[in-house]
Amino acid sequence: MSGFSYPILPSGHLLAIEGLEPPHISALLDLAESYALLNRQGKTQRDLLKGRTLINLFFEDSTRTRTSFELAGKRLGADIVNMSVSTSSVNKGETLLDTAATLNAMHTDLLVIRHAQSGAPALLAQKVDAAVINAGDGTHEHPTQALLDALTIRRRKGRLENLIVAICGDVLHSRVARSNIHLLSAMGARVRVVGPPTLMPSECARLGVEVHHDMRAGLDGADVVMMLRLQRERMNSGLVPSPREFFRFYGLDAAKLAHAKPDAIVMHPGPMNRGVEIDSAVADDAARSVIGEQVEMGVAVRMAVLDVLARALRRNA
Amino acid sequence: MSGFSYPILPSGHLLAIEGLEPPHISALLDLAESYALLNRQGKTQRDLLKGRTLINLFFEDSTRTRTSFELAGKRLGADIVNMSVSTSSVNKGETLLDTAATLNAMHTDLLVIRHAQSGAPALLAQKVDAAVINAGDGTHEHPTQALLDALTIRRRKGRLENLIVAICGDVLHSRVARSNIHLLSAMGARVRVVGPPTLMPSECARLGVEVHHDMRAGLDGADVVMMLRLQRERMNSGLVPSPREFFRFYGLDAAKLAHAKPDAIVMHPGPMNRGVEIDSAVADDAARSVIGEQVEMGVAVRMAVLDVLARALRRNA
Amino acid sequence: MSGFSYPILPSGHLLAIEGLEPPHISALLDLAESYALLNRQGKTQRDLLKGRTLINLFFEDSTRTRTSFELAGKRLGADIVNMSVSTSSVNKGETLLDTAATLNAMHTDLLVIRHAQSGAPALLAQKVDAAVINAGDGTHEHPTQALLDALTIRRRKGRLENLIVAICGDVLHSRVARSNIHLLSAMGARVRVVGPPTLMPSECARLGVEVHHDMRAGLDGADVVMMLRLQRERMNSGLVPSPREFFRFYGLDAAKLAHAKPDAIVMHPGPMNRGVEIDSAVADDAARSVIGEQVEMGVAVRMAVLDVLARALRRNA
Repeated sequence: MSGFSYPILPSGHLLAIEGLEPPHISALLDLAESYALLNRQGKTQRDLLKGRTLINLFFEDSTRTRTSFELAGKRLGADIVNMSVSTSSVNKGETLLDTAATLNAMHTDLLVIRHAQSGAPALLAQKVDAAVINAGDGTHEHPTQALLDALTIRRRKGRLENLIVAICGDVLHSRVARSNIHLLSAMGARVRVVGPPTLMPSECARLGVEVHHDMRAGLDGADVVMMLRLQRERMNSGLVPSPREFFRFYGLDAAKLAHAKPDAIVMHPGPMNRGVEIDSAVADDAARSVIGEQVEMGVAVRMAVLDVLARALRRNA
Repeated sequence: MSGFSYPILPSGHLLAIEGLEPPHISALLDLAESYALLNRQGKTQRDLLKGRTLINLFFEDSTRTRTSFELAGKRLGADIVNMSVSTSSVNKGETLLDTAATLNAMHTDLLVIRHAQSGAPALLAQKVDAAVINAGDGTHEHPTQALLDALTIRRRKGRLENLIVAICGDVLHSRVARSNIHLLSAMGARVRVVGPPTLMPSECARLGVEVHHDMRAGLDGADVVMMLRLQRERMNSGLVPSPREFFRFYGLDAAKLAHAKPDAIVMHPGPMNRGVEIDSAVADDAARSVIGEQVEMGVAVRMAVLDVLARALRRNA
Repeated sequence: MSGFSYPILPSGHLLAIEGLEPPHISALLDLAESYALLNRQGKTQRDLLKGRTLINLFFEDSTRTRTSFELAGKRLGADIVNMSVSTSSVNKGETLLDTAATLNAMHTDLLVIRHAQSGAPALLAQKVDAAVINAGDGTHEHPTQALLDALTIRRRKGRLENLIVAICGDVLHSRVARSNIHLLSAMGARVRVVGPPTLMPSECARLGVEVHHDMRAGLDGADVVMMLRLQRERMNSGLVPSPREFFRFYGLDAAKLAHAKPDAIVMHPGPMNRGVEIDSAVADDAARSVIGEQVEMGVAVRMAVLDVLARALRRNA
């Protein structure tokens, strides 16, 4: 967009929120906000990534994230190729680094990767000329999710600073939680994590967040209630809580939400397990739930990230 | 296309043939006919859906229909994202309505859906801003198939009115049959259904069609013989006829076809089970079989439907 | 590209290397070389295939080849639809020829096919109006792989004539080997095949290549060492060599490579089984290994093939 002061991501990649400075984050959110406006107007910027190749390399399934990146790239005019693990050479035993070398030789400009192993995107970034965007790696980070969450909060609350944000549920297995903690802390919000002791990472103290095991205390006076998906697929079978028990103690319903501020907003990264992490009445409450706006901001944030990274690419298009 | 009087689909969606009026149907066929001509000339109309997002949401596999919609959308310049059930969040337990909300938040303009449950597209249409196109729902309808069949017949026979059309085989499980019965009846054709009693729906009387259990009687004097696919995947295992028995009584071969008019055309929606519903000699008889033309008209009909629905969208592109 | 003398593929398809004349091959390589240059400069030729429909019809999985064709087609502006066997009607029992008829009726211009059965692309080519490109059929041929290998060799060695090329490993099951033998022999290279007797086809004598069962003798004085992938999925279970034994006798390591010329280059079509066909130290040796360049040339070669075949299509775009 013309007349816009572009943020620079020093690494040339977006691998994590940890390490980004508040001015980078704010500038990304500002740019994303203007893309959100264009999207609502049905306008596109097809020349921006014209001639650029974007590869969606997904080693884990995801409707939302893959589609969101695909739409973001298409609205900016990129050539997009989807590679999912089930149709890839990875089944033939190829290493991640050989896949990286292949994509590099094909002159990939932007490489979006989701992988079950923490650190896989960072490893790739060392080996390719493309700008690498982490679309979720193991239990590490999911930076575009934190950016879209922050943009959604900022639009609803006008700021991030000094807001009380309660991140609730399976914090232990959640890369969404980790990226949000880094971003919100950096921007001056007061972050709490709420969940059972078995689903709480030991590093919470180091991260400077308040830990709660009781939803009432954790939600008390919160401006934002951010629910997490219960990641049963990442748990040892012995530790999986029963959905019923989990909902009773940690599922968000009207009674628990009553402890938050009267104008608190409710968030969920999706896909939701209704009746497990969140009650349908709360999820569908148009006055409180901003879950749809999170998805909408997701496309806008990814357009901003692709735009910023493509401008910094060494190779000219 | 300029100078063309555009049909308006009152609902803003294409969920079923039932409920469409003859003028709507005729106008759609006229528009599709002009797209068929452009396709033969290798011409495209890429500005028509430029900046529009089309999502192909397929909960059941389909080569023909998905590819046909994808080509139709691309030839009109849309951005297309394919979502199939095997790579979607549906596996993670997300509800159809949550998927709808997600696609809505991403500013989807045109949503093509195939689903195993009858009524799923209509349910989605209530929840999204996009124009919804039913690409086959359970045993309910498959409206673009009926439109392409009608266009093919009209091109070969010059009209639909007063033609005798025999729809043969597994009528009970066939959404193709249902959509064709509605369309052909509305346009004044005389529709017969022919098949074993176990594969015949009870509603045939209500639909005003003649029911036959004998192919010779059913095909007698027919202008059009429309074979259906045997939907073994939708039958209870106890009711599945043996392919051999089925072919003997209901498979279309030269002997049975001899009962139809000498210039009767032969149709099949594909994919064909050769030797079960239809004999290869009949399927490949260039003088009688219009199966290839059905596929060709499929792309043209879908271009017409996308064009008409996109023009009626509230959101500007 | 303007000012360029275009090669003509007499059949209008690219089904095999066998039967191509040296001038055809040289002209294709020259055109591909200029596409390689454009790709490095990030330039595209989007008008060339504008309005053309390319279908990637893959009955076997492949990351590299499918992605390579997809990128090649996109960089030339084609509309591309991917059809893989797992999401296709083939599961519903449709025959290959019915699939062909369907694609034909949809006005496909360029049809890229990979199939487990040798001869499937040639069969399709008889039935469709599209130009057919064999992307690998059974143990028969993989012509674009041989072209990209030849281009890579020519760039590194300045010529193909009189080079000693050792093709090593599972020659029996390798369509890559077969296409390379035809191409390199036609262009005047001296081809040797090296591998265990159980993995050596009987036709080697007819093809006029030297057969070796010992790597040291086979590599002696070679300019090019081309390793093959061990195709365990195509072997009878009783004949599968253990990876350890195979590597000991036929895996390329520094000791075996020492028998080739000091400036010999090392090739592999990928994906590599590291530690089985090739030692990692050799695969990653930037001075010898040209594996990345093979992938890069793959996109350029496919652009050249699509360009040449599209120019010869009867139907105008």
